[in-house]
Amino acid sequence: MAVSSNTVRVALMPGDGIGTEVTNACLAVLEPLARRHGLGLRFDTLRAGAMAYRDTGSAMDEDTFKSAATADAILLGAMGWPGIRYPDGTEIAPQLDLRFRLGLYAGVRPIRTLPGVPPVLADPRAAQIDLVILRESTEGLFAARGRGEVIDDREARDTMVITRATTERLSDFAFDLARRRAEQQGRRGLVTLVDKANVFTGFAFMRKVFHEVARRHPDVEAAHHYIDAMALDMIRRPWDFDVLPTENMFGDILSDLGAGLIGGMGFAPSADIGEHHAVFQPSHGTAPDIAGKGLANPTAMLLSAAMMLEWLAGRGAGAGWAEAAAELQAAVDAAFAAGLRTPDIKGDAGTSDAVKAVIEHLGFTP
Amino acid sequence: MAVSSNTVRVALMPGDGIGTEVTNACLAVLEPLARRHGLGLRFDTLRAGAMAYRDTGSAMDEDTFKSAATADAILLGAMGWPGIRYPDGTEIAPQLDLRFRLGLYAGVRPIRTLPGVPPVLADPRAAQIDLVILRESTEGLFAARGRGEVIDDREARDTMVITRATTERLSDFAFDLARRRAEQQGRRGLVTLVDKANVFTGFAFMRKVFHEVARRHPDVEAAHHYIDAMALDMIRRPWDFDVLPTENMFGDILSDLGAGLIGGMGFAPSADIGEHHAVFQPSHGTAPDIAGKGLANPTAMLLSAAMMLEWLAGRGAGAGWAEAAAELQAAVDAAFAAGLRTPDIKGDAGTSDAVKAVIEHLGFTP
Ligand SMILES: CC(C)[C@H](C(=O)O)[C@@H](O)C(=O)O
Ligand SMILES: CC(C)[C@H](C(=O)O)[C@@H](O)C(=O)O
Repeated sequence: MAVSSNTVRVALMPGDGIGTEVTNACLAVLEPLARRHGLGLRFDTLRAGAMAYRDTGSAMDEDTFKSAATADAILLGAMGWPGIRYPDGTEIAPQLDLRFRLGLYAGVRPIRTLPGVPPVLADPRAAQIDLVILRESTEGLFAARGRGEVIDDREARDTMVITRATTERLSDFAFDLARRRAEQQGRRGLVTLVDKANVFTGFAFMRKVFHEVARRHPDVEAAHHYIDAMALDMIRRPWDFDVLPTENMFGDILSDLGAGLIGGMGFAPSADIGEHHAVFQPSHGTAPDIAGKGLANPTAMLLSAAMMLEWLAGRGAGAGWAEAAAELQAAVDAAFAAGLRTPDIKGDAGTSDAVKAVIEHLGFTP
Repeated sequence: MAVSSNTVRVALMPGDGIGTEVTNACLAVLEPLARRHGLGLRFDTLRAGAMAYRDTGSAMDEDTFKSAATADAILLGAMGWPGIRYPDGTEIAPQLDLRFRLGLYAGVRPIRTLPGVPPVLADPRAAQIDLVILRESTEGLFAARGRGEVIDDREARDTMVITRATTERLSDFAFDLARRRAEQQGRRGLVTLVDKANVFTGFAFMRKVFHEVARRHPDVEAAHHYIDAMALDMIRRPWDFDVLPTENMFGDILSDLGAGLIGGMGFAPSADIGEHHAVFQPSHGTAPDIAGKGLANPTAMLLSAAMMLEWLAGRGAGAGWAEAAAELQAAVDAAFAAGLRTPDIKGDAGTSDAVKAVIEHLGFTP
């Protein structure tokens, strides 16, 4: 299903807490950018999340889900709130429902050092970090979500599921992504599966299927690495990696770890991509501690929006979309390179200051 | 079962690769130290690991297991080898069998910055990192070891198991450890359970049981943290944490991540402790790339041996053992503070140079 450039409908789900703040910030940047490139971008704002659950008893009602599912893309802020839970105590997380129900198996989580952001690692090579965690997002340990059982208040069980079908799709996605990064950005073309095949049947199976798929992509280097060794190497030599497909739970952990290396979750965008749908959202949560104060760093949201424009371009929306994506990312980079410092990296530029800086670097007068 | 000071029998399992090298290094330090303190320390060397499997068809035969199980403590080098595997492709890891068969539920993995070791994080507070990952080591996802199934070459399943009994023991262990660290080392007395209770039934159960146990330890602060947020905070503010109990797989990941923060696996000791037995071993593996070259950093092994002496002291071996433990740790610290630099931190001090430096700081003439 291709999209047509003058009718792109984006379901906007601001969610809770700073989710709504970074969503507004993002719109303030996207609107002039869309005008400049003549992008036919229409936003439908949809309500879902913890506050929706509190007010209506439903975290994302069926009409909302359908509206999101029929949109060309979904742009999501953040959802969830500490005190608001399902009766079983688990989190209000419609973003997980979207991943499962829309089959968004490829959780793309780029980890890239932005120029100017103060280094977290002492090693100067940290300036070259540019990798992508590819978190499988529809199965793995998360297959147990809502299905785990507690027996007699004595023992609990959650079953991790790894399928051939999803592993094949994820692996193909990884090799295609690495190839694109090699061609477009001069990266080395390396896909490293992260698993624990030395201990678990499921991971040995995943590794086997991965290497079967790798044979169909002889132009890209294929490797594998244990999750524990990878956690170590994310600190020791993250600049040596490129595309890292992995199981859902491992990907959740590695992507936060990776975000830590580049200044925190405020710099970590994400895309959850399936065959026909995609959700774009910052990797961070709703940040109750700073919500409502205008302090949220909108960078992850802006970079997620750039990923959305780029993805839409690839689906037929047209060249203007890819240009807009590239301009947006370049403007964010330029703003930090020029000294923008948000509170999460000990600066004092609030959300609107950051927006202003990015808009300026896009060449608009704010 | 208390030990008696003049008959302590340690089962020595050097294992494979650099395991044998750091074991020999450790003996060279322990022997004069034992003489000085009149410790009745006897070593029985036992063969187990990948090479044993290759040569005998058994990674750890029953006589060997019995000899280890009847010893007062087990000191282990490292085991496993890339090319040598069980028929199902999983790793030769008798250390996992020891954990399961001897009920070594408490995997104690201290993460402490040694004075003089070059910083990995840019933030100067990294010099204050001093936390303990407490990896549950008999269940969790690892309960699936040898039990996972692949259905029709299409789908694989591994089931994570969390029991009340083990969670209670692990939690008690964590609070006792935090209390001891507060009393003896002036640490703040904080236990932070690391889980993913927002998504999984098993982790919600674990958290519930943990807080039940916490009520029996009102003098120690109890908190919980999600694994993904913890991976981020291990980078952002590891100096704020103290004792971190967690599930087996999460603990495996976090302890390698932690080791990365303090210079690598060569600085990460460990103890796997049960009601009646304990295994002490460096967190690192057999390092095939440097095995046989005299380059292995013996620090993790020496610090593991110090943990063993300390544990034996607590089990009635006597005051001399605790003194020897403290002297050993202090000598390792002093050696690095005085400029010792092993190859893993870009120095050129090989295994025997490191041993020599530690022996000198113990006050012996090598
Ligand atoms: C909110 C939470 C359930 C979610 C997850 O674990 O997937 C989040 O951590 C993420 O990474 O998107
Ligand atoms: C060798 C391997 C199976 C083992 C584990 O995963 O437990 C190791 O990584 C460890 O941490 O002791």
